[in-house]
Amino acid sequence: MTEKIVCKICQAELNLQQRSHTCPQCSATSVEYDFDLSETGLAIKNSEKGIWRYRSFLPHFEKTISLGEGQTPLRKALHLFQDKVNLFLKIEGSNPTGSYLDRVSPLMVSDAMSRNMQSLVCASDGNLGASLSAYCAAAQIKCFCVAPKSTSPEKHTQMLAYGAEVIDYGETIDDSLDLAVKMIEKGRYQATPEFNILTIEGAKTVSLEIVEQQNTFGSLKELEYIVVPMGSGGLLYSIWKGLKQAKDFKLIPSDYKFPKIIGVQVEGYDSITKSFDDGNSIQEISKKNISKNKLADAIMVRNPIFGEKAVQSIKESNGIAISVSEKEIIAASKLLGKKEGIFAELSSATVIAAVDNLLKEKILPQNATMLAIITASGMKTSGAFQKSTSQDKKVESLRSMGTKIEILEKINSKDSNFGYGIWKSLGQMISLQAVYQHLRELQIRELIIEIESNDRQKRYSITSKGKQLIKKMNELEELLS
Amino acid sequence: MTEKIVCKICQAELNLQQRSHTCPQCSATSVEYDFDLSETGLAIKNSEKGIWRYRSFLPHFEKTISLGEGQTPLRKALHLFQDKVNLFLKIEGSNPTGSYLDRVSPLMVSDAMSRNMQSLVCASDGNLGASLSAYCAAAQIKCFCVAPKSTSPEKHTQMLAYGAEVIDYGETIDDSLDLAVKMIEKGRYQATPEFNILTIEGAKTVSLEIVEQQNTFGSLKELEYIVVPMGSGGLLYSIWKGLKQAKDFKLIPSDYKFPKIIGVQVEGYDSITKSFDDGNSIQEISKKNISKNKLADAIMVRNPIFGEKAVQSIKESNGIAISVSEKEIIAASKLLGKKEGIFAELSSATVIAAVDNLLKEKILPQNATMLAIITASGMKTSGAFQKSTSQDKKVESLRSMGTKIEILEKINSKDSNFGYGIWKSLGQMISLQAVYQHLRELQIRELIIEIESNDRQKRYSITSKGKQLIKKMNELEELLS
Repeated sequence: MTEKIVCKICQAELNLQQRSHTCPQCSATSVEYDFDLSETGLAIKNSEKGIWRYRSFLPHFEKTISLGEGQTPLRKALHLFQDKVNLFLKIEGSNPTGSYLDRVSPLMVSDAMSRNMQSLVCASDGNLGASLSAYCAAAQIKCFCVAPKSTSPEKHTQMLAYGAEVIDYGETIDDSLDLAVKMIEKGRYQATPEFNILTIEGAKTVSLEIVEQQNTFGSLKELEYIVVPMGSGGLLYSIWKGLKQAKDFKLIPSDYKFPKIIGVQVEGYDSITKSFDDGNSIQEISKKNISKNKLADAIMVRNPIFGEKAVQSIKESNGIAISVSEKEIIAASKLLGKKEGIFAELSSATVIAAVDNLLKEKILPQNATMLAIITASGMKTSGAFQKSTSQDKKVESLRSMGTKIEILEKINSKDSNFGYGIWKSLGQMISLQAVYQHLRELQIRELIIEIESNDRQKRYSITSKGKQLIKKMNELEELLS
Repeated sequence: MTEKIVCKICQAELNLQQRSHTCPQCSATSVEYDFDLSETGLAIKNSEKGIWRYRSFLPHFEKTISLGEGQTPLRKALHLFQDKVNLFLKIEGSNPTGSYLDRVSPLMVSDAMSRNMQSLVCASDGNLGASLSAYCAAAQIKCFCVAPKSTSPEKHTQMLAYGAEVIDYGETIDDSLDLAVKMIEKGRYQATPEFNILTIEGAKTVSLEIVEQQNTFGSLKELEYIVVPMGSGGLLYSIWKGLKQAKDFKLIPSDYKFPKIIGVQVEGYDSITKSFDDGNSIQEISKKNISKNKLADAIMVRNPIFGEKAVQSIKESNGIAISVSEKEIIAASKLLGKKEGIFAELSSATVIAAVDNLLKEKILPQNATMLAIITASGMKTSGAFQKSTSQDKKVESLRSMGTKIEILEKINSKDSNFGYGIWKSLGQMISLQAVYQHLRELQIRELIIEIESNDRQKRYSITSKGKQLIKKMNELEELLS
């Protein structure tokens, strides 16, 4: 295999150990790997672990490492958007550290190992940092993660758990990048995606795998759309590059029609979508303008380095770029859990929100075959998910408590003390059966007790615990009024 | 396949829909599935999803469900206990909801589906509840999880994320069990492990898989020990049952020598270990005596229902039961992260603590081949892990700050302002190189700036940010003295 690193703009050829995206000659961020794969006797290597089954499509390293990444499930949706679209879900959260970045880390860590580097530096607000920490542990390379304040506690903990040195620095990832640049010394490997072109090569294995899993959806030709979250835009670009490479090198038939790529951003951090829409170049989101929304942290990127490439890819594919709101993301995340039994990171749920929006706006054809990339596990933003739902939960539980308290007060005031009587006095607003269910639950919670059960009619009395509850509710009402 | 449910004590045969462990005839908790597998044309079904590849070893259901559970990695340890034992790790955290209980849920939910049940009830303080919630979502069965206060926030969130109705009830799982029993009505399926014998059948697929993955460690015959965490004792018993069934039904050769089973509990919740040691029956841990340790929540069981069976299994295998302390668990968990890149639930790290103890006490032979079951992902007790390490972290960072502050004060007091001078004035206690490193880091943190760099000698001055830091340190010292 002939392996080169070239600038796609000025054609300069770079040293193979130079992994920067920026061309030292023309300053464009267009440096990339260039293989002549036609020589490799291209094949998928089933005997290899993890992403190394695609070794023929990847740069060559003396030493390689794997934690069993990749081969992630491609599942047909069971209930989501049933009868509207034919949806497949690629579940990247099942990677070793719970995100698709486990496809990127093995390349960087293998590179560092092959060059006998002793330590590795990356700026990351989460998933890449957690992933690199795990691979560095396995390779026994010291891992320094520079993490901004916005890093989710779960990801922060994950990095520490794998023994990384976490340096909390700066308000946002942009500050952390500055420190990561300064920390590079002889013997330290630069693994920040913004400074390392292996990012694209690793992430493209998602496409190679989709191509390989084509039998799951009958024929790959039927696949009309791929929906991808966009932070820096790197994953989307990688997926497009992987598909094109798969066709160029005849992994898929020559009459293969590429799917349209749908890129999804979160409102407030949607400079790629805006650039796609207005045709202007990508505008960095100024610090002052950044949104207060923080749930979809993995894709809140102010300055998306792969933005231009993402726009270009979407255009080539005749695709769409759209933005979704935080509210829509939360709703989509719940839908994914409730309908499919998949707990996705909030940034990953964007793809479901996007499909929902596109269906509502009738932009998608009926029964389209689509594939959405679920980039990471929900356990990585568990706290944020919990926070987003606790408000609802409180309202819900107060609402359902309402009827119970009303029933409890009726029993307390000796207004009525049996099911049918209570149902009557509640104005028959809910079903009699529901009243019986409430009575059972009040009894289980020891707020009422059964005092008499003759003529098949159960009668109840309030307990002291029940009385206390009513007292507290009254106090609460006074405070609130 | 002939399929029966029988009491192993009084031989009573039960209705196939009766899934209780307790025999209605003799009251012993010894009811179990009994197959005549010799009739089945026993084989592993590669075409089936998830645990259903072991369909011939499992009860029959009209409908079945899978989320792609099982086929979890069996990895040789890379660095852990190197040159001491030959350790393999079975990583159950890579199951769809992150724990081995994803092998149990498909059976229960398939059972509920086949019997057209509309809802399912379970008492769980975590992993089973999270798992059942996901499978119920996929099956569109309403899932009620009764969870005690001790449930980890991550697991609580996970249940909600899959759309389950979580009923927070009671101080410990024992209280929750009471409510789960009361909540059983017509049309509600009882999925609490304490009341459902499918638990054992599902968990035994861990052994069937180990047997199938035998090539990983050369030959299964070489496997001398299996190390398993014990909560209720159910997993350990299941693993032993699975191994015996694999031999009985010739999945492994007749000259196969069973490995010794090592059961591991956490101190304070170690009634199985105690019963193994003193030969007495299992003693329930009284509410008053329960330990304040709460980290290994998944195995903190006061009344281990499978305890007797676990003791029996360990004895049959000529194995060992041991208990480990919370301190040892934390250390083991860090070791697993740092040496192997595996983030395990704290209760799972017990197995590593156990191997460490057994090596120190020279109970294990040199170079023994062992397999440890890592039952769940560390993301499930992320908060607890973080809490357990934050204390250390604070101490560490203060200690490493010490030298930096000393250097900063020297520059501030104009005592010395260049590397060599500072090194001298520090009494040459650390290396000159380390002084340079501290200076670089102080500069990156903008606490000092370079003011002069001639004669190849850099000189530094303190910044206003650096002065503020010294002021704050002095204030802190005053408060502490």
